[in-house]
Order: sequence, then structure tokens, then C-alpha cells
Amino acid sequence: MIEIQARLDLQRRQRLGMVEAVWGEHKTSAQIVEILKSLQAVSELALVTRVSAEKAKELQSVFEGVEFHPQARCLTLGRTADLIPSLGEVVVLSGGTSDMNVAAEAELALRCHGIKTELLIDVGVSGLHRLLDQLERLKTAKVLIACAGMEGALPTVLAGLVSQPVIGVPVSIGYGVSAGGKTALEGMLASCAPGLVVVNIDNGYGAAMAALRILKNLNSSRNKNS
Amino acid sequence: MIEIQARLDLQRRQRLGMVEAVWGEHKTSAQIVEILKSLQAVSELALVTRVSAEKAKELQSVFEGVEFHPQARCLTLGRTADLIPSLGEVVVLSGGTSDMNVAAEAELALRCHGIKTELLIDVGVSGLHRLLDQLERLKTAKVLIACAGMEGALPTVLAGLVSQPVIGVPVSIGYGVSAGGKTALEGMLASCAPGLVVVNIDNGYGAAMAALRILKNLNSSRNKNS
Amino acid sequence: MIEIQARLDLQRRQRLGMVEAVWGEHKTSAQIVEILKSLQAVSELALVTRVSAEKAKELQSVFEGVEFHPQARCLTLGRTADLIPSLGEVVVLSGGTSDMNVAAEAELALRCHGIKTELLIDVGVSGLHRLLDQLERLKTAKVLIACAGMEGALPTVLAGLVSQPVIGVPVSIGYGVSAGGKTALEGMLASCAPGLVVVNIDNGYGAAMAALRILKNLNSSRNKNS
Amino acid sequence: MIEIQARLDLQRRQRLGMVEAVWGEHKTSAQIVEILKSLQAVSELALVTRVSAEKAKELQSVFEGVEFHPQARCLTLGRTADLIPSLGEVVVLSGGTSDMNVAAEAELALRCHGIKTELLIDVGVSGLHRLLDQLERLKTAKVLIACAGMEGALPTVLAGLVSQPVIGVPVSIGYGVSAGGKTALEGMLASCAPGLVVVNIDNGYGAAMAALRILKNLNSSRNKNS
Amino acid sequence: MIEIQARLDLQRRQRLGMVEAVWGEHKTSAQIVEILKSLQAVSELALVTRVSAEKAKELQSVFEGVEFHPQARCLTLGRTADLIPSLGEVVVLSGGTSDMNVAAEAELALRCHGIKTELLIDVGVSGLHRLLDQLERLKTAKVLIACAGMEGALPTVLAGLVSQPVIGVPVSIGYGVSAGGKTALEGMLASCAPGLVVVNIDNGYGAAMAALRILKNLNSSRNKNS
Amino acid sequence: MIEIQARLDLQRRQRLGMVEAVWGEHKTSAQIVEILKSLQAVSELALVTRVSAEKAKELQSVFEGVEFHPQARCLTLGRTADLIPSLGEVVVLSGGTSDMNVAAEAELALRCHGIKTELLIDVGVSGLHRLLDQLERLKTAKVLIACAGMEGALPTVLAGLVSQPVIGVPVSIGYGVSAGGKTALEGMLASCAPGLVVVNIDNGYGAAMAALRILKNLNSSRNKNS
Amino acid sequence: MIEIQARLDLQRRQRLGMVEAVWGEHKTSAQIVEILKSLQAVSELALVTRVSAEKAKELQSVFEGVEFHPQARCLTLGRTADLIPSLGEVVVLSGGTSDMNVAAEAELALRCHGIKTELLIDVGVSGLHRLLDQLERLKTAKVLIACAGMEGALPTVLAGLVSQPVIGVPVSIGYGVSAGGKTALEGMLASCAPGLVVVNIDNGYGAAMAALRILKNLNSSRNKNS
Amino acid sequence: MIEIQARLDLQRRQRLGMVEAVWGEHKTSAQIVEILKSLQAVSELALVTRVSAEKAKELQSVFEGVEFHPQARCLTLGRTADLIPSLGEVVVLSGGTSDMNVAAEAELALRCHGIKTELLIDVGVSGLHRLLDQLERLKTAKVLIACAGMEGALPTVLAGLVSQPVIGVPVSIGYGVSAGGKTALEGMLASCAPGLVVVNIDNGYGAAMAALRILKNLNSSRNKNS
Repeated sequence: MIEIQARLDLQRRQRLGMVEAVWGEHKTSAQIVEILKSLQAVSELALVTRVSAEKAKELQSVFEGVEFHPQARCLTLGRTADLIPSLGEVVVLSGGTSDMNVAAEAELALRCHGIKTELLIDVGVSGLHRLLDQLERLKTAKVLIACAGMEGALPTVLAGLVSQPVIGVPVSIGYGVSAGGKTALEGMLASCAPGLVVVNIDNGYGAAMAALRILKNLNSSRNKNS
Repeated sequence: MIEIQARLDLQRRQRLGMVEAVWGEHKTSAQIVEILKSLQAVSELALVTRVSAEKAKELQSVFEGVEFHPQARCLTLGRTADLIPSLGEVVVLSGGTSDMNVAAEAELALRCHGIKTELLIDVGVSGLHRLLDQLERLKTAKVLIACAGMEGALPTVLAGLVSQPVIGVPVSIGYGVSAGGKTALEGMLASCAPGLVVVNIDNGYGAAMAALRILKNLNSSRNKNS
Repeated sequence: MIEIQARLDLQRRQRLGMVEAVWGEHKTSAQIVEILKSLQAVSELALVTRVSAEKAKELQSVFEGVEFHPQARCLTLGRTADLIPSLGEVVVLSGGTSDMNVAAEAELALRCHGIKTELLIDVGVSGLHRLLDQLERLKTAKVLIACAGMEGALPTVLAGLVSQPVIGVPVSIGYGVSAGGKTALEGMLASCAPGLVVVNIDNGYGAAMAALRILKNLNSSRNKNS
Repeated sequence: MIEIQARLDLQRRQRLGMVEAVWGEHKTSAQIVEILKSLQAVSELALVTRVSAEKAKELQSVFEGVEFHPQARCLTLGRTADLIPSLGEVVVLSGGTSDMNVAAEAELALRCHGIKTELLIDVGVSGLHRLLDQLERLKTAKVLIACAGMEGALPTVLAGLVSQPVIGVPVSIGYGVSAGGKTALEGMLASCAPGLVVVNIDNGYGAAMAALRILKNLNSSRNKNS
Repeated sequence: MIEIQARLDLQRRQRLGMVEAVWGEHKTSAQIVEILKSLQAVSELALVTRVSAEKAKELQSVFEGVEFHPQARCLTLGRTADLIPSLGEVVVLSGGTSDMNVAAEAELALRCHGIKTELLIDVGVSGLHRLLDQLERLKTAKVLIACAGMEGALPTVLAGLVSQPVIGVPVSIGYGVSAGGKTALEGMLASCAPGLVVVNIDNGYGAAMAALRILKNLNSSRNKNS
Repeated sequence: MIEIQARLDLQRRQRLGMVEAVWGEHKTSAQIVEILKSLQAVSELALVTRVSAEKAKELQSVFEGVEFHPQARCLTLGRTADLIPSLGEVVVLSGGTSDMNVAAEAELALRCHGIKTELLIDVGVSGLHRLLDQLERLKTAKVLIACAGMEGALPTVLAGLVSQPVIGVPVSIGYGVSAGGKTALEGMLASCAPGLVVVNIDNGYGAAMAALRILKNLNSSRNKNS
Repeated sequence: MIEIQARLDLQRRQRLGMVEAVWGEHKTSAQIVEILKSLQAVSELALVTRVSAEKAKELQSVFEGVEFHPQARCLTLGRTADLIPSLGEVVVLSGGTSDMNVAAEAELALRCHGIKTELLIDVGVSGLHRLLDQLERLKTAKVLIACAGMEGALPTVLAGLVSQPVIGVPVSIGYGVSAGGKTALEGMLASCAPGLVVVNIDNGYGAAMAALRILKNLNSSRNKNS
Repeated sequence: MIEIQARLDLQRRQRLGMVEAVWGEHKTSAQIVEILKSLQAVSELALVTRVSAEKAKELQSVFEGVEFHPQARCLTLGRTADLIPSLGEVVVLSGGTSDMNVAAEAELALRCHGIKTELLIDVGVSGLHRLLDQLERLKTAKVLIACAGMEGALPTVLAGLVSQPVIGVPVSIGYGVSAGGKTALEGMLASCAPGLVVVNIDNGYGAAMAALRILKNLNSSRNKNS
């Protein structure tokens, strides 16, 4: 197991400016513990995604200091970054209560990197007024992350209304043709709204890291240019 | 060939109240001529869908009285029905200029049955104000047919705004994931808007016949109840 | 959680004439309770679909007055509408016993809106005489909803026999190529019967709302014209 | 090229009782000529399927005695078998004029083997009476081959009405979800009618050979048992 | 529930010569009991397919006389038909031990109709000699049913070796690309062996009914001709 | 046609800061001319994408001042924006010569909006040194757009090496499993590199607009904050 | 059951030089015991793949001498071959901890045949330096087996760096578009690296047998030629 | 264009021991000429695959010394390697005449690298004796490449008969479910024969390079060990 530890991508924070993230879904508790120990040894903040409540309880019982975030289904180990307001704010929108896990994963991942983030739930397009009512507030965010299952039309409508970067996150919520999130994904990719970008189904973490790349870039350029 | 003629579904007008329609795409000109002769012999109005300009020209040169409708890519033979205003009006919407063939097929098929119909083009959801501006006018129609390619979000947004029957027609306009219209189709089926119904990709004729079933039903019930 | 409550689409009944429906499948009991409280606060009838017997029992134990409909796998909270016979009747057909849940969901959803509805089970096309025997009775309905799994041929055969609106509901009953309902769905969309419309797999609720749009429309027009 | 000739499966007629058939679609005229020469050298009847009118003309100009069957899009070389009435008759049904090529390929392939065959066109399920009218005649056939595109419901309805072997042939006629014949294929495989068997899309030849296996078997057993 | 009973297709035995079969997979024990009672009332033999050992035990505890066949995962109620040797024999082959459930379902379904049937296991094509060793014995059967999962090549190889009817049954055994049986199914449909016919994945019952149609046909014709 | 003109989304430049773009692929020359006239009337710069050389020649012959960009397969009408160096630079990478059309479309679309852009061709991952050699130069760009067909691994490798926003554009270059670009698309979505975002297959224009949203945002924030 | 035993492919070791392997996933413990007994009777080493910990425990309790390998999820019965260093070494690489089961299955299967094998974990392409660091060591192996889930880019990058045979094994690790391993599989097949070969998803055993074919061949040729 | 030239992967021959190959299908003649000039400048042998007869003629007219291989649809420029008999021989098998292009591409690609190769056509599994007759000859080859379309069973049967490396090449020959080669591909991946490896559909070149990796490896090891 020493070998595994040796190849954790510990240069990642330095290379990409990102906290080490561990995808927990297909790992056993024992494997996760091994990885967390390695990270603790080098004093890195760790984020473990896709952890069920059962696995979380199991891990917390054998590993002190691990915090569980039930809405986001994630674990963190170590102190999250201080908020860096100068980087600007991200708003994470979702069409319905059922999409909340994915939205919460995005929110937590950004918070781990010091990004101010707000969750905006239940703004689905079948009751359009709920989204239109929030339009002015949305225009103040630096990046928008829009999570949607079923037909996934929310990011399309949103990207037609605002000029900021919009990251669509298809959610595996639905049934029949929309089960598994493929319809939402393809709907976002096929979008008639120009400049909408997309990540994998349920990939709240990935959307957060994309937002981080944008915000960090913004920041670094301001430093360089001023 | 006598045998083929013998089995044209000539009871269809009586059974379903619909004009005989011939799907022209996979038929040769010779096959279409044979069918048109049979229909002419029994004085039926005929509608031939999916006819290219080339095939139309060929047919018109050998068969007098055939009319070609280039926008709808259809042929008609015989006098179309008189307008029956009491049946109410259908509005056919489409997201963009590229969807126009399908919308025009629906419009022509309804006109053949005496239904008043209006085409409303370029009301796609990436510039939402164009649709919202037409909302009051849309509420006066008895049935709405919404044609859309790419992500196909138009019928979803529409069915969240109005209470009438909305029939979604996915259009095989797009590229990459939306090529062939499957993404638009699945987006409409997966719609979060309640009570949206869908027909096959590019099936403007089918949407028209569904609208006809609704309007005729309405009419018949008024007769019965008054 | 106050935020969630705030954005329930409470204008929906007024805008679309439909009872608020909650899709229960991907929601926890706690989330459903929260939503039901909000609806109760504004005295709205609520319909929760896709609820397992286990989840129903759990909810009933913490929330008084919730009624469970096991065949339809739905919960209701509040008094359903009185029957409005003038709107006409809907017949819901299904090919076999296995399709009954979906048919029952459609029936309950219509009943919640005061629509008279009858269920007609076991009229699959492999024993055609069972359907043909019911033909005269079917012609008295204003709208027909046909639920079918496997090859999904029932709505096609039906729409070739009657002139009323027929709404096909593919059912996720089957195995091999028909598992999940995709074959039934595509068979209905590809139907050679003119004017058949389709909703998502297992979407009994959606078919009911489509029927409601048709019947309400009919009603409203009668009021306007008389 | 000598090598190619050497491995033609000339034992096939003896092993399987079938004429050598060449699938012409992906072969050049030169390749087909080479194969026909080999077969002529051993005095075998040859059947070449999937040949366009253009390729047929080209082949006929360089190879004497080749006959083209335009409806079936096939070539034959050599004398077809005499009719063997004692083997019984096959009826080939098709839903519409557009399916005729496939039905005609099946008919020709059976004729090459001396099987009496009748074509019955335009008996699609959207006008059910046309099929029901032929029911008594259909019951006199030994095997039924049912070709259908779009939703492909014809073999399902047929196999629910008669007790003979029914072979479904999906046809690549359709558009949208039915383009390419996959929907018809899956509809036939998913059929609720017991004992329906299926061959590949457009495989009229294969259906004919399946019918031949059945009829030959029947014959051989009668010989053995009498 | 009286209504359900009323529409059991009790004319089926007379129309198609087949025992009533109930697909048990998506039915509750209560629903199956209800159906069995109806059949018992009219003294029909019943075959219930796709029944788990658990459900079988449950049913046997409440309904006397039900027999469970664990290998075939089927229930029967009532006396199976006497063997009718004059109809000839069917051999059911399978590639491996894992395919045995499907093969056993076919065998049982044939036995219910009085057909002599033999199971031949472990004749997969990766060790070809095992199949070639059985060739002479296979040639004595009237119909061959070949069950195969993974790449599904067994029926193709078999149909190239023998002249009788061969019915391929794809089996949902496999992993990766072969999980669910789609690869086996498509391999059988795409087969280069002429006249191979195919049924749905895991449909042992359907293959048996296809064999029955062939054998009954054979029998009826011998009666007619002698 | 007046109606069509009326609904061009002329508020788009103001709302989203983007030039009006017309998707030329599914439009006839006549339709494109009509749209260009409308845009010329309001003095808007127009970009028409997906135009074949033939259609371009046809359009140029009837409409003066239209410029064709053969590599990007696009037309422009009107003066493109002046370069705005302060917005920073975008580098567009592609794996091979075959991907160049898509990369050139992205480059042109950015140039139309005044963004400095460089094309970097032939940096595919099968000869990794070619990419690694450019690493320092890549780190000076504000946004990276990586176009790749076949397995589409380039954006994944790139996003593991640099911290800026990386937008993956799958290209419909390939054959067998990679034909049409779906494999490249799914490879990018499934990427193990954190924060990679993706647009539709061949959507060079969309990637450019996403880059524009990022750069404009950066700019606007600098204005606000300074 | 005697019959089953009779057809175990006991000539396989002689014909292909491979140990008898039993695919355990879809077999019951009873079926596996039966097979193991047959193999023990002829003193063959047996390898049973895809065995869960539960099934393994069950088998070990009834069958003495069975060894379980938890990481590889395999059972062995009998003495594995002695190491044959002259055959050369195989290195099995994997992108992450989650792929380890598949890599371990390959490693065990090779060890059963006396092949020296090393596992190299956590060399995924998102942190490229980890792979590049191992390059010299990799060049000493005779064959490389690269296991990867998600986008599956590892074998592509590897095959561009080394000249030895590289066998890609897609792993069913992932979510959204990469769930089930299809994206990794198609990415490997579509690879721009020349001469990469691929086996089925999760087929560590198959990759090992392919490596064995290569190494044995190498060995046999050396014997023949020296 | 100078830039393009600069990044040709000229280190490839040294790194991988392979001739530079250009995939010609999606490149214009002008692009191919540019690349050939660059290769000629550094005296490299070039192989251009997927070139139509038309494009070949066009290229030969502007570039002297280019040789066209019509069966393989490839161009070569420069002297191919001398035969290196010590590397051993490869046999390329194909199921039918229609697969010959792919087999010939593999043969040519090997010949360019000095590998002795033989083509063996028409050994499809529907007439098994043709393959069994060649068995002894096949056992003398070092590597076997088996090309097959339709159900693709040839490599499976072959890999069950011989112990050498077998590389399956699915061919895009077929119709219906086998059109495009996906069924053949999945059949080979799902193969029950142990150790069969697969390349992309129609990828004769890739199979040749895989064989080269094996043979070169073999050679290098013999050098090392002797």
C-alpha cells in the first residue's frame, strides 16, 4: 500500500491550484482511509465525493476529524480555505429539490477553495416566472452553474438571458427517456444558446473546478495587469 | 397492380374523418402515380408528403392537376376542404427558419381538412422575449403545435405558460448530439411541463392529425350537447 | 428550507388549471413532508406520484390526512375535486395486468381534477377480439389513454379504429429489447396510425394532464361559444 | 482470384439444400462477375441479392444470361427450380407499398427453390379490416412471412390470429425513430404474440430460407414416416 | 377483479393451440393467484414463467397443486399434455451452464404441449469439437433451439452445419458489451448463416412456441395429405 | 418573409454581447440572403457558419460584400471588431490536420469579437512531446480551446497540465466507433482531469462564445473593480 | 449432471496452453462446486473469476483446498504453475485505486500460468508526470496491460510512448457517460496511437490470456529457431 | 502551412519503430500533398490509408512517385522495407470477398515494415469446413489477423482452435443490425474464446501495427537472449 501513497498527485495543488479530491463511490472504506492518511501526512485538505451516509459513518468511526456533509454527500478532512471575496461569487441554480445533491456538491467544492457561493433551488423552466424574478440577482455573479435533470432546459434558457459564463450540469434525475441524465446532458450540449458549456452528468465537483479555473484566471490577470 | 388499388384504405375518411395521405419518401414516382389514380377514381382528395422538388416536377409532368407545395414538400390532388371556422384555430410555432418545412407540413395538412392555421416562426427559447411577446395571441388558439430542433426546449417552455393542448414536434435539425432530432425528441418526452404530448421526429402531418382529432371531438361534443 | 417553500409554483393552478403534483421518486420522506406542509398552508390539494408502499407508510405516520393509493402508487393530501360530468369521460386502456400501475396513476390524476374515468384492463393486441368487443363503448369516450409495454402496439391498433384523441403511454414492462419501455415508446412514435400522440415511459400522470388540457379546452370553448 | 473461386461454398446445396446466394451490395461488378463465372462452371443456379438497377445493367452487358428482377433488386443466373406444390405454399404479407422490395426478395428466393409463394400487399394494421378480410385465405398457407416497417406491428397482430409459423421481417422504411428499421425490429422481438420469430432488417432472403428449412423438414418427415 | 378474469384470452388454446402462459416477472403473487384461479375454474393447464424461488414458495403456500420447476424458474398448474411422439423431437442446445435457465424454460414449455425435447449443455463454439461430436444426433431432431450468451455465435455455426429450422435464443449472460444479451441478439440477427431465426433475449418460452407452430403445422399437413 | 425579419434576435448583441450568428447548414441560399439583408439593414456584423464552398460561391454571386473563409467554412458580412488586446488571448489547439475546420471556426468567431487568437495544430497525444514542447507558451493564454476527434484525449491531458479554463471541442473525425465524434465527446465528459468543460461535437463557434463569456466577464470585473 | 461434466473442455490446456477458467458471476455455488469436482478429478488447476467474498466463503466451507484472492475476486483450486522467467515479464498498469480489481485479476491469471507480473497503480493521465517517471521501467516489460476507467486515455498515451504490445482493458468505473465502461472502451478502440489492442470491459482475464498467447508464441519460436 | 510541417511526428519511427502513416479519409488532396512533401524532405517512407480511387488519381497527377494500391485503398511514397523473414509470418483471414479492403490494408501495412504476410479469403464460419481445412497452415503463422463483418464470429472460432495471438478486425460490412460493423465489433469483444484482442472497425492498419509490436518484441527478445 506504500506504493499507492507514493503516487498520490501531491503536485496537483501546485500545478492546478486545486485541493486533492478523492472520488469515493467505487472505493472501499479501507481504501479511502489509506488515502486520507497519506494526505493528512502532508497536511493537505482533502475532499471525498460520492460518499453514502453509511460509508461516512463507518469512516468517521475509524478516522477522527473527518467531517460529513450529508446534502453534498461528501467528506472533508482538514480546514477549508478562508473565503476570498475578491475572487467574486458563483451562483448554483437547480430546477428542483431532487437536483439538490449535485448542486450542494458544487457549492461545497467551491467553498473548499475559498469561493463565495449561493444555492438557488426550484427555478425550473416549467414555471418560468420563478427564474425571471431572480434575473437581476443572477447578473451580479461571476459564474453561474445550472443543475437540471429531466429535459435539462434550465441552462439553455439561462444562457439566453445573461452574458456571464454558464456551466450546465445534467442531473441523473428522471425516468423513462430521462433516467440516468443522458437526455438532460444531450439537451444542454445541443443548446441553441451560444456559449453554454457542459460537464458530465451529476458532476457538481467538475463544474465547481471549471468555475475555479475561470475565477482564478480572472484574479491572476488582474494582478498581472494592475 | 389492381390488387394494390383494391386495398387502399378508402374507408379511412369515414372511419377517422381524415383525408387519405400517402407517405411519398420511399415510393417511386410510378408507385405514387398508381396510388393517385386510384384515389382520383373515387374522387378523394389526396395529400402526398415528403416529396422532393425533383420528384414533384416529374409527377406533375405525367399527372395533371397535381399541386406542389414547396415549403411543406407536399403534393395535393383535388380540392381541399372549405375552411370551417367553428372548429377553432391552430397555431404552429417553430424555433427557427430551419424548422419551417415541418411546420409548413403541419399547416398544409390542417388546411386540407378545413382547419384555420397560423405559422409563427423564430420564437426559439434562446431569445425568450420573442415568445413572451406572443403570449396573449397564443392563448386564443384551440391547439398549439410547437416544432423545434436542437435541444427542443420550446414546447416545454410553452406548455408551462399556457393551458391548452400543446403538441411537440421534434425536428431533425442539428449536428453532433442533436443530429437527426433524437435529442429534441427525448427532451420533449422528458419535459418537466405537465401534459405535453409528442409525435415522431419531423412528423408535422401527425401533429396536424392529432390536432384534428382534438378539434373534431370538440365539435362533435358541441353538437351532441346542444 | 424556507427558501424552498417560497418557490413552490403556487401560480400553477391558476395558470394551467392543474393541481400541484410532486414527483416523489427521487425525494426523501423529509423533503416530501416539507413540500406537503407548504401546500397545506395554502390549502392546495396535493398529488405525490411514484411513492413506494414503504415510503407511504413512513409519511402517513408523520403527517396526518395523507391518503395512499397503492395501485397508483400515489399519495393525495386534501379533498379531490367534485366530478364534473359535463367535461366528458376518459377511458384508460391497458394491455395487461402488469401495466396497471401506470393506468391507475392516470386514472387517479384525472379523478383529482374531477374528470370521470374508466379503466379497461387486458385488451392487448395478441388476442384482438378482446379489444374489438369494446369498440362501441370506446367510441363514447372523449379521450382515450392507451398504456402498453412490450411492443406497444395497442395504441396503434386503437388509433386506426377510432377518431378521438388517443394518447399512448409506453410502459416499462418487458425484458430483453423491451426492458425499460424504450421499444414500446419508439413503436408508438413510429406508429402508422395518424394522429397518435405519446408521452414519456410510465408517465400516466402526463397522459392525464394532456387529456385534461383537451377536455378543459373543449369546455372553455363551449362556454365561449354558447 | 483463382483462390477465391476455390473456396466458394459449393457443398452448401448438398449440406443445407439451398441455392448459392451472393450478397451483392458491397461487391463490385467485377467481383460479382468472378463469382458468377465460378458458379456457372459448376452449373449452379445463382441468386445475387441487393443489386441496384445500374449495377444490374452493367453486369448484364458483360455477362450473358443474367436475369434482373427489379422489384426484388436481385439477379439470377441459370434455371430456377420447378415448382414443388407438395411442399405447400408461403404467403408473404407487407404493410405498404414501400415494403415491397423486401417482400419481393423473399418471394423470388422461395421461387428459386421451387416453393409456391403469394404476395399480399397493403394489409397494414392502421386499417385493420384489410387484414381481417384475408384471414381465411392466410390459414391455408404453410408459413407466413410478414414484412413491416415503421412500428412493425403487423406480425404481432398476425401471430395472434393464426397458428402457423410466422416470420417477421422488419423493413428499413420510416423516418425519425423508425428510420433504419430498428424500431420495427425491436417491436417484433418484443411482441406479446407467442412464437413469432424474426430475422434481420430487410432480410427477405433470410426469411425465405427459414421458410424453406421449415417446409423441407416437413417434406422430409413425411417421406420418412410414410 | 372480476373484470380481469373476464378478459383472460381463453380462446387462445383453440385459436393458436397453445396453453395459457402467464408472464410472472412483473406480477405480484396476489395478481398471479387471481389469474390461476380463473384458469383453474375453466380447467386450463397454466404455465407461469419468470418466477423466483421466493415467489414460488409464497404461491405454493397459498395455492395447492402448483408445481415449481426451479431450473426453468416456472410454475405449472394442472396436468401437462401426454407426449405426442409423432410430432417429432426438439433439441435445445446451450453454450454453457450459465444459459441453462433459458434452455430449461424452452424445454418445459414444449413438454407442457406434449413435445419430446432434449437439453444439450456446454456445446459452446470456443471448444468446437464438443458441437461437432454431436452433429449426427442433432440431425435427427425436427427443430433446433440454440441458446447462447456473450457473442452468441453458436446458432450461426449450427445453422451452417444442419438443414433443419434453427431458432436462436440470445441469453442475457455476459458483462461489459455483452451484458444484457444485446450483443448475442444482434450477432444472431446479423448471422451469415442463411435462414436462422431469432426471438427476444432470454425468451425460451417464445422459442418453444415457435417450434410448436412448426411441428403442429407439420402434423396438420400430414393429416391433410394422407 | 417580413415576419421572419421582424423576429431576428437583434437585442442579442446588447443582451449577450455577441454578434448575430446564423447557422447555415440547414438553410437554403435564399433563406440566408433574406436573413443577411435584415442584418445589413440594421448595420449588424453577421457570421454565417457551416457554409460549403458551393453555397458560398452562390451567395457571393448574389450578395455583394460577403466574405468567405474556406478553412472555417464561414461567411462574414460587415466589418469585424477591432482587436481588443486587453481582453487577453485564446489558444485553439487541435490534434491533427483533419480537425482544422472546427478549430478555424472557433478562431474566426473570436476574431469577429476582437479577441486575439492563435491556432496550434498537430499536438495530438500519440506523440506527446509535441504538446509538452508548447507548455510554457500555453500558460500565457487566458483560455484554451482544445479540438480533438477519435478518442479525444487531448483536452484531458491538457487540463491535467495547466490551471486555466480548458474548453474541449469533440470533432466528428474518425471511423468505426469514433465516427461522428460521439466517442471524443464522451471521452471529454468522462475526463479524469478536473474542471474540463465541453461543447457539442464540431461546435467551434460555441467554444468561442464560451471563451468570450469568460474574457468579457474578466474585463467587466476589472472595470468594476478599478 | 454427469452430462455437464462430460463436456468440460478438457482438451483446452493441450489445444491452447491455458488453464481451465470458470466464469463465476452467473453461476450458483452448487454449479461451481460441480465444475470444480470435475476438474479436480482430472487434476487440473482451476481459476474461477468474478466471485464475491460471500460466494467465496460459501464455497470454501463446502470444498476444501479452494483459495480466495480478494483483490482479484477469484478462486483457485490446485497448485499454480512455477514461475517461468524466460517467458519475460508483464506489467499491469492502472489509472487509479478503483481499477485495482481488474488489474489484480489479470495479474493472478498470468501468475497461474507461470508468468512474472508486476502491478503499477495510480499512473492516470491527469497527473502525467507519474507515468513519465516510470517510462524506463516500462520499457523492460515484454507486454503491457493498461487498465483504465472514465475516459480511458491511459493506454493511448502509453502506446504512443513505447514500442511493445499494449493491451487496453476498459474498466467499468465511472458515472454519467462513463458508467459501465463503454466510454473507456470506445476511447481505446478509437485511439490515435497505432497498434493498441483492446479486450472487453473489466476483462482482466482476457488481457492476461492475450499476453500469454504473445509470450508463449515468443517462446515457442525461440525454441523452433534455435 | 510551415507550422504544420514542423510538427509531423518524425520521431515516431525511432520511438515506435513504425513508418509514418497518414489517415487520408478526412484530408483534402492539398493537405495530403503538403504532408507527403514534408515526409519526402526527410526521406521517410509514407503510407496514406483510406484513399479513394479518385483522390489517388488526383494525387498521382500532381505528385510523382506516389503508388496506389487499389485493393487496400492506400498510397505509398518511397521504397518499402526489405522482407525480414526472421520476424516470422502473419496470416490475414477474412470471411468474404466484401471484407477484402480491410484485409488488404493490413497486408500492405505489414509489407511496408518488411513483414511476410499472406491473405486467406472466404473462410467464413457459415461453411466451417473451409476454415478447418486450413488449420495446419494457420498454426505456422506467428500472428493471425481475422477480419469479419456481419456477426463477426470468425475470430472467436479461430481463437478457440489455435494458441497464437489472434487479432480481430470488425468490418463495416452488413445491413440492418450489422450495418457499420458495431455488431461484429461487440461480438468479438464479447467472445467466449480466451485472449482474443480487438481493434476498431475497419482498422486493418491498426491490426497490422499490433502484429508488428508483437513480432518486433519477439525479435528484440531473441536478440537479447542469444
